[in-house]
Amino acid sequence: MKLAIYPGSFDPITNGHLDIIERAAHLFDHIIVAVSINSRKNPLFTLEQRMHFLEEEVALLKNVSVDSFKGLTVDYAAGKKAQVIIRGLRAISDFENEFQMALMNKQMLPQVETVFMMAQAQWSFLSSSVVKEVASFGGSIGEFVPKMVEKQLLEKFGFVVTR
Amino acid sequence: MKLAIYPGSFDPITNGHLDIIERAAHLFDHIIVAVSINSRKNPLFTLEQRMHFLEEEVALLKNVSVDSFKGLTVDYAAGKKAQVIIRGLRAISDFENEFQMALMNKQMLPQVETVFMMAQAQWSFLSSSVVKEVASFGGSIGEFVPKMVEKQLLEKFGFVVTR
Amino acid sequence: MKLAIYPGSFDPITNGHLDIIERAAHLFDHIIVAVSINSRKNPLFTLEQRMHFLEEEVALLKNVSVDSFKGLTVDYAAGKKAQVIIRGLRAISDFENEFQMALMNKQMLPQVETVFMMAQAQWSFLSSSVVKEVASFGGSIGEFVPKMVEKQLLEKFGFVVTR
Amino acid sequence: MKLAIYPGSFDPITNGHLDIIERAAHLFDHIIVAVSINSRKNPLFTLEQRMHFLEEEVALLKNVSVDSFKGLTVDYAAGKKAQVIIRGLRAISDFENEFQMALMNKQMLPQVETVFMMAQAQWSFLSSSVVKEVASFGGSIGEFVPKMVEKQLLEKFGFVVTR
Amino acid sequence: MKLAIYPGSFDPITNGHLDIIERAAHLFDHIIVAVSINSRKNPLFTLEQRMHFLEEEVALLKNVSVDSFKGLTVDYAAGKKAQVIIRGLRAISDFENEFQMALMNKQMLPQVETVFMMAQAQWSFLSSSVVKEVASFGGSIGEFVPKMVEKQLLEKFGFVVTR
Amino acid sequence: MKLAIYPGSFDPITNGHLDIIERAAHLFDHIIVAVSINSRKNPLFTLEQRMHFLEEEVALLKNVSVDSFKGLTVDYAAGKKAQVIIRGLRAISDFENEFQMALMNKQMLPQVETVFMMAQAQWSFLSSSVVKEVASFGGSIGEFVPKMVEKQLLEKFGFVVTR
Repeated sequence: MKLAIYPGSFDPITNGHLDIIERAAHLFDHIIVAVSINSRKNPLFTLEQRMHFLEEEVALLKNVSVDSFKGLTVDYAAGKKAQVIIRGLRAISDFENEFQMALMNKQMLPQVETVFMMAQAQWSFLSSSVVKEVASFGGSIGEFVPKMVEKQLLEKFGFVVTR
Repeated sequence: MKLAIYPGSFDPITNGHLDIIERAAHLFDHIIVAVSINSRKNPLFTLEQRMHFLEEEVALLKNVSVDSFKGLTVDYAAGKKAQVIIRGLRAISDFENEFQMALMNKQMLPQVETVFMMAQAQWSFLSSSVVKEVASFGGSIGEFVPKMVEKQLLEKFGFVVTR
Repeated sequence: MKLAIYPGSFDPITNGHLDIIERAAHLFDHIIVAVSINSRKNPLFTLEQRMHFLEEEVALLKNVSVDSFKGLTVDYAAGKKAQVIIRGLRAISDFENEFQMALMNKQMLPQVETVFMMAQAQWSFLSSSVVKEVASFGGSIGEFVPKMVEKQLLEKFGFVVTR
Repeated sequence: MKLAIYPGSFDPITNGHLDIIERAAHLFDHIIVAVSINSRKNPLFTLEQRMHFLEEEVALLKNVSVDSFKGLTVDYAAGKKAQVIIRGLRAISDFENEFQMALMNKQMLPQVETVFMMAQAQWSFLSSSVVKEVASFGGSIGEFVPKMVEKQLLEKFGFVVTR
Repeated sequence: MKLAIYPGSFDPITNGHLDIIERAAHLFDHIIVAVSINSRKNPLFTLEQRMHFLEEEVALLKNVSVDSFKGLTVDYAAGKKAQVIIRGLRAISDFENEFQMALMNKQMLPQVETVFMMAQAQWSFLSSSVVKEVASFGGSIGEFVPKMVEKQLLEKFGFVVTR
Repeated sequence: MKLAIYPGSFDPITNGHLDIIERAAHLFDHIIVAVSINSRKNPLFTLEQRMHFLEEEVALLKNVSVDSFKGLTVDYAAGKKAQVIIRGLRAISDFENEFQMALMNKQMLPQVETVFMMAQAQWSFLSSSVVKEVASFGGSIGEFVPKMVEKQLLEKFGFVVTR
């Protein structure tokens, strides 16, 4: 049994995240999408909302579950007895940070591997931040996030979705 | 059953390659280390030598086998019904080429995933080419390659290993 | 008639920006230098000051005008019926962000092209932030910004310009 | 009248090149796609073939013509009295080389500007080399190059196209 | 007499910093490790604490002293009549910022050279920020910082060190 | 006494190399500019010519000498009892290769340090290769190399220098 965790803020989930989740679900026996709780960050959506979005979107994937955690990713991974941490890579700048984090995690918990999956070309420019930025001006984000997220994201910024 | 292939020239295998193989062996049910035969490249070691080095080094890993292939990696992966292509990442320049190749492969064979594992910090400067370069001047390479490879590599360049 | 907009914070304008404006003025029929108003950023100079600096510096360029806008660059570009968004590139890190933004904009407004012009080698280290940083310690910035900006920038930080 | 040249080897043209040409045709009054003749490179297709592919593909674009040149791009640009050199950017590694070349050209011929347009996300992994590599193994390249190029490319490597 | 300064926040010092200091001490006649005081940053440790850590750790290096400064590094270097500014490089992202700063400093004070030393492979993922991040969750940081720093860092975040 | 070597092909020397040499001469007691002899490379100028260019250009720098070597840089450095290897950095791609080489050298000869100096902004696009490329088409290279090199370089490619 190979258990993989896919940690992140998911504030909110994008189609890029969902693409990684679906593809990872074919590679490992079980995937836990793990929302990290970071008291120093100020998320747009509450933990409950972020988990709810995820649960709705992965409902049809039988070997994927949603959880949340506080603290270090490696401690969470150790607690779950996971063998794998999954991270998506989009671009060079991702690569640098992810590399640093992966080497640090390897040092702290050698028995867990970080594996990287690359975002599909069409999502290579997509991030939660850029989606929030666009939504904050009422821009069209329907292609980048699930329908439910689109609606709530635009409402957050005072726009009404009518389509 | 998750089958992963780890393709490469392996001319010759380094400790960096071996590290990736050992770690990958914990993540997937079976790993095929697949030596690519490229008639346009001019390898230092014959296919037989390269495969022999690999077979000796992975002999103790029960779920790892060694094979060779001609042509496109995706065609080989499809033929083996592999779900995963494994690639090691060391540095930014790797990243660019690997990314391009992975996107191309994804386009040609969507059902196979490329997953990236990063080299350990201590091997981040290590490549077959740099080892050959050092060996060609009789430099010390004992820390970078298995003992058997070290001996044959130095002999290739006319040096005798006496230690 | 090819209309190009050159959007940015311009807080304050540097010689690097001016170089891009002058060169862009030779390529397109009209250039609008468009100061973006971002309520989440906290600029050092007011919108009026930033526009005033620009107007003084581009006064002699007949096909360049200065404007400001709120919201998404693509919405502003669409409203002006511009065909082109101009962006300056200095370095790799610029490249990543600019690439992401350009792909996002392309997705939202396909008929507008982002074209990149590269900073001249001598300005490749120059940014509004680094100029503000140096000015905040009373460092010499006369080579990096127009005279009027230099004076007001140093005064902002409590230094008197006497030369 | 703004005249832009788009120089390259085009050995052979890909859909990524065509995308840049079509988009550039909206920005400038006339585009010359200029095939560079480099006696030190050993192209797969003859100059005539490369120009023929281009001419077929741009036939419908009224303000695009095809030419060839020997020697420095800046000398060719100066001879044509072009104001603009167009270059496509796909990735970081492109960026470095292109930047170096653009700065060098700027030094040699200040009155000509290099402008960069970025490849669409879907072509970001596409290059003439990678297409040739795939074709050499008989891989499927129909999505990456025009039909006429696909046929001739596969025939070059001894494959018959039957679809 | 070649005098070099090694400026930084050192909040707190890591084994990576110490490695650079020790190696630099072999290259130049005297090294001043200079803690920069930046009123706009909010350090975790006071200036006194940061200097104290440094003084303890470099006590055995005869040609290394510890100092602090306010304002521009180049002004401090000029005041000390230093010929050299030392900076450590770990990764690409370092490189970009450091390059920009070094070019800016060169412009402002041409007679002082910035020389870069690269972090050893084993520290290439190490930064004060990542150590603070790990410590804030009570993670193990004993391999990354001197013993004294480890203790105080964990206490800062409410953990008791018992080993 | 701090002895530094500055190794390279110098085929031929450029103004960028000379800038590094002059600046390094202020940092260390003696600099040996060491031309590497690599039988696998095919230089444009003979070893004698390359050394002659260097000797002419550094004649006025009292603490700089010119030498040549075969084999590994670290072996040469050890033989000379040098403490320092100097390398110039221009761009990201340099950085990657240089980093790899420096880590490898550190592993093989820990007592010698590689220090990096960055090219001045105006030379950041300059390399021996790009100068040879331009010269091969008879382009103007007078700003990039010493006068003597310019003349011989253009003559190599069959051009007569008349100015």
